[in-house]
Amino acid sequence: MAATDPHPYFPPAAIIPGFAPNESSLTRLLPLFGCTVAAVVAAAYCLALRSRSRLRPVDRFAAAWFALCESLRLHQGYYIYNRTSVAGLQDPFAQLWKEYALSDSRYLTSDIFTVCVETITVFVWGPLCALTVLAVVRGSPTRHVSQVVVCTAHLYGVALYYATNWTEHRFTGVAYSRPEFRYFWVYYVGFNLPWVIVPLGGHGIRGLAGEAGSAQEELRLPSDGAPSMPSMPSMLASSHLQTEPGFSKACTAQGWRYPRANDTDRAGTAPIPA
Amino acid sequence: MAATDPHPYFPPAAIIPGFAPNESSLTRLLPLFGCTVAAVVAAAYCLALRSRSRLRPVDRFAAAWFALCESLRLHQGYYIYNRTSVAGLQDPFAQLWKEYALSDSRYLTSDIFTVCVETITVFVWGPLCALTVLAVVRGSPTRHVSQVVVCTAHLYGVALYYATNWTEHRFTGVAYSRPEFRYFWVYYVGFNLPWVIVPLGGHGIRGLAGEAGSAQEELRLPSDGAPSMPSMPSMLASSHLQTEPGFSKACTAQGWRYPRANDTDRAGTAPIPA
Repeated sequence: MAATDPHPYFPPAAIIPGFAPNESSLTRLLPLFGCTVAAVVAAAYCLALRSRSRLRPVDRFAAAWFALCESLRLHQGYYIYNRTSVAGLQDPFAQLWKEYALSDSRYLTSDIFTVCVETITVFVWGPLCALTVLAVVRGSPTRHVSQVVVCTAHLYGVALYYATNWTEHRFTGVAYSRPEFRYFWVYYVGFNLPWVIVPLGGHGIRGLAGEAGSAQEELRLPSDGAPSMPSMPSMLASSHLQTEPGFSKACTAQGWRYPRANDTDRAGTAPIPA
Repeated sequence: MAATDPHPYFPPAAIIPGFAPNESSLTRLLPLFGCTVAAVVAAAYCLALRSRSRLRPVDRFAAAWFALCESLRLHQGYYIYNRTSVAGLQDPFAQLWKEYALSDSRYLTSDIFTVCVETITVFVWGPLCALTVLAVVRGSPTRHVSQVVVCTAHLYGVALYYATNWTEHRFTGVAYSRPEFRYFWVYYVGFNLPWVIVPLGGHGIRGLAGEAGSAQEELRLPSDGAPSMPSMPSMLASSHLQTEPGFSKACTAQGWRYPRANDTDRAGTAPIPA
């Protein structure tokens, strides 16, 4: 590092006003981070366990996943509130952000794109994550739309996060991450990758969880029989969505099921098994 | 404009290599743009009119809307391919981009965020728009998920587009749009606003189209009875989605309807009316 470099971030020329090195070690910071996240995730998992809807394991995973997202939104909210001063603060959350910023210095330079993405994430996707957790725990059918919306937003957000960084490096040679394995591959790539894997890999998760078993077995499920973590590609390829609330209610009230395009061939005459 | 300013864009200090003023007037450029867009939209509308699924007017609007999005993706594809040279080109598409860039000069400076958003839009959301048009025309149930995904992406993309510009101006005083009404309010705000209004205002569109009539009337519809342009807020609040393909197929094959959480109270015993 050049002697004139007043901070450990990349690019060395980045202007980070008031930067002060962390006073706590990572071994003291990480447990705090882990505890706050674990507390929110555990609360959601317990709520799911006690749900009247008798959720499946994959449903409980979904509740825990969106609770994890929500807990991270709280950390991001701290960042948005303190974005201009975080580089000089020494509270645990600020030190965690300064540690993470070693993988992406844009967090300490109030980069416009970063601030905008984080703000929308905190104020829009955060509350939607919380609503999704509630919908999953209550076995509400609204969970499926909110899951698709949140998963799409996460996927798009991470894609832009990776893409802007990569493109900047490709076009201008500027790197925002330190090149060490820990910062680039663990922090920058690894910590964000779950928000690519989970939305795209829901089908795999369902398979691992044994949720893709025989339809006959699923017919005995007490919940709404829909997947907890729908995979966007698989849904796009083959899902069957019915989305008219008024229509659905009218059908339900009259004991009718939803009509389909070719219903005239096989009008539903059999009751659902208990 | 300062004498040293070699281009009409904002900020005046923006570096736009090789810029050459448009040689054609707007009255010659707009008809070309209108014709290419109208051709794609009309083709989709005609396909929807001839669909075997006997689509409702709001379904045909959905097909036309996503075709409009797709046609604009073609223009954006041109931009991505020529982004570094577009400022000096004189073909009609380049001149259209130079005209639009008066409302956002980031398109002529290869701004990293703009290039990334446009690239993802062209290569991901563009094909998904085309698939959505096909799904709508064919009356496929996959349309509902792809509509939610595309609408979420459009909404997030426009939010970031507006937000980055606004935040840059707020934080640094830099404006990318010329301040004249035509450029700021018509081009910059107006041309992008439909991608906020349509995803958020689907419920209103359904209402205007008379699609929110009585459920009894909708029971007689020959298509799948689901809304063509679901409103994200209304869907999040009250939709009823069922998303397990295997499960759905098994139910359909056995003449069973989808089970719901409280099905034991009112097992569906009535057939669907013809």
